[in-house]
Amino acid sequence: MLHEISKDEILKELQKLKAKKVLIQSPEGLRREAYELAAFLEENGINAIIHGEVNYGACDPADKEAKLLGCDALIHLGHSYMKLHLEVPTIFVPAFAKVDVIEALRKNIEEIRKLGRRIILVTTAQHIHQLERAKKFLEENGFQVVIGKGDSRVSWPGQVLGCNYSAAKVEGDGVLFLGSGIFHPLGLALSTKKKVLAVNPYSGDFMWMDELKERFIRKRWAQIAKAIDAKRFGVIVSIKKGQLRLREAERIVKLLRKYGREARLIIMNDVSYMKLEGFPFDAYVVVACPRVPIDDYENWRKPVLTPREIELLLGLKEEYEFDEIPGGRREKDEPLGISLHKAG
Amino acid sequence: MLHEISKDEILKELQKLKAKKVLIQSPEGLRREAYELAAFLEENGINAIIHGEVNYGACDPADKEAKLLGCDALIHLGHSYMKLHLEVPTIFVPAFAKVDVIEALRKNIEEIRKLGRRIILVTTAQHIHQLERAKKFLEENGFQVVIGKGDSRVSWPGQVLGCNYSAAKVEGDGVLFLGSGIFHPLGLALSTKKKVLAVNPYSGDFMWMDELKERFIRKRWAQIAKAIDAKRFGVIVSIKKGQLRLREAERIVKLLRKYGREARLIIMNDVSYMKLEGFPFDAYVVVACPRVPIDDYENWRKPVLTPREIELLLGLKEEYEFDEIPGGRREKDEPLGISLHKAG
Repeated sequence: MLHEISKDEILKELQKLKAKKVLIQSPEGLRREAYELAAFLEENGINAIIHGEVNYGACDPADKEAKLLGCDALIHLGHSYMKLHLEVPTIFVPAFAKVDVIEALRKNIEEIRKLGRRIILVTTAQHIHQLERAKKFLEENGFQVVIGKGDSRVSWPGQVLGCNYSAAKVEGDGVLFLGSGIFHPLGLALSTKKKVLAVNPYSGDFMWMDELKERFIRKRWAQIAKAIDAKRFGVIVSIKKGQLRLREAERIVKLLRKYGREARLIIMNDVSYMKLEGFPFDAYVVVACPRVPIDDYENWRKPVLTPREIELLLGLKEEYEFDEIPGGRREKDEPLGISLHKAG
Repeated sequence: MLHEISKDEILKELQKLKAKKVLIQSPEGLRREAYELAAFLEENGINAIIHGEVNYGACDPADKEAKLLGCDALIHLGHSYMKLHLEVPTIFVPAFAKVDVIEALRKNIEEIRKLGRRIILVTTAQHIHQLERAKKFLEENGFQVVIGKGDSRVSWPGQVLGCNYSAAKVEGDGVLFLGSGIFHPLGLALSTKKKVLAVNPYSGDFMWMDELKERFIRKRWAQIAKAIDAKRFGVIVSIKKGQLRLREAERIVKLLRKYGREARLIIMNDVSYMKLEGFPFDAYVVVACPRVPIDDYENWRKPVLTPREIELLLGLKEEYEFDEIPGGRREKDEPLGISLHKAG
């Protein structure tokens, strides 16, 4: 399903860096590729160490670990660059899906027309290399296509992350999401408040988000209701570089205390309920990756909310808002391939 | 079962440090105490953050996290000091068990006589505050009692850790272990090669280790046998400060390669098999906490060995050896209470 990792290009970059020792980080789906890349680099005289923790995004580069091990570089497989302070030179190796997106668009063109004439086109890193082709195809079919630039958390115009929909915040009649899964289009619907149509390039299926969005909001209100009388809140931040939302967490702690609740800051690495068993908190707020309280809440024995949901709980807001992590201004786009980022 | 955490003493130390913000780290059994300590410190004007990861020993102080969060100190609950480079001042707060050890000794005095006249007395941090009383009681009963100093990984003479039996390596007829669980007395039996009797102060029961040791060795040989034809070995080190045995891991990688196996260094934080699913390794070596391959091997779908067991697998040694992590020379003993260690 995924492109092969471009081993030769990575080797070239490492040779330019005169790297002798590197650390290779990978998500669950690229473990074998990480293993094979390590063997390939070793054959070419570069000492390669494998990072064994499962990586979920560019928000968690293992640059500190690379530095600690005396590595000259980190190779981060499967995610595009996110602007963060890096402690060693890091090569980001995005994994582009091989599936053709045009076929799915063609199949669903009449459905897409229901979005309006001016459509906001977005996708994930997996399909970003086909976004221009998709745009052209849609234009040929009479659409006006807008692709937002996005902020410094993303690498390319039109790219969205589970925690960042900045590329969708442009003028348009509706949003067309190219990709699989429900999380991103749900985030898009909640974040843009526009009509969202998701077209899945693998299955060719489409999915309108209106009803799913309403059902999602009802489920989240049920979580909020469970925590409504909670006295003691644990407010969790993650040590992961791109998830360490300390100021936001401190704001939530203050807010909860102001409204008569106990609140305590908790720091974790991978946020999961199992580790928190034994603490006498009544409810938790995850001010880290927004996917944790939303995708994983069924594994929590205590209500678990996002920071935005705390404002709803306290009656400070009424309309449901999706938890996003904003970035700053992005200087330039990344190449559609590997990219080296210096330390600093 | 455990002593109360001496909150006032901790507060005094923090006031001496003029600490405004601290991080509190705790093992699974002291979560409520961590929570209550945080509330107490907050009432006294100190901003307290809770570390949500489960802590398994002084080998893994969260000093880096404390520094990152701008904390003036780390409070490490439940374990005694281990000599490591610390990045912030750290208060170690050992948790001493309230149970009286003398009763269990009295009950088992005839069994203890079978060890010989000159006995090596050891225990874990939980009962260390009663070691002198135990020694006196045994001397009154006609024994000669030897208490070894131990190295810099432990805090007090006579203290053993799952990974360190240096305090037992003295002259004597046999080893008397005061404490619960099977891991420590097993380690003692394998490490000292002497007769070991474990006396449990909670239950009053005794346990001779000879047979258990033989059974353990047979089980470990079965693990070794499963890996005997393995081609690809993952050699795991942990980023945890007191478990980062990089040189030992590199030695094992070289050794495996010298004997025609593929070997690759893997770095993890908490070592567990689940995260490694997907890598095409045939077997693993854990060069981190020795308890992982020994206590947790049933959760691994691939054979998992200690570095010593690799030498047995390669036929370089014949006699089973327990995996220990040695320390350096210990300058002085710790107090039998909280102790502050400066950064550096």
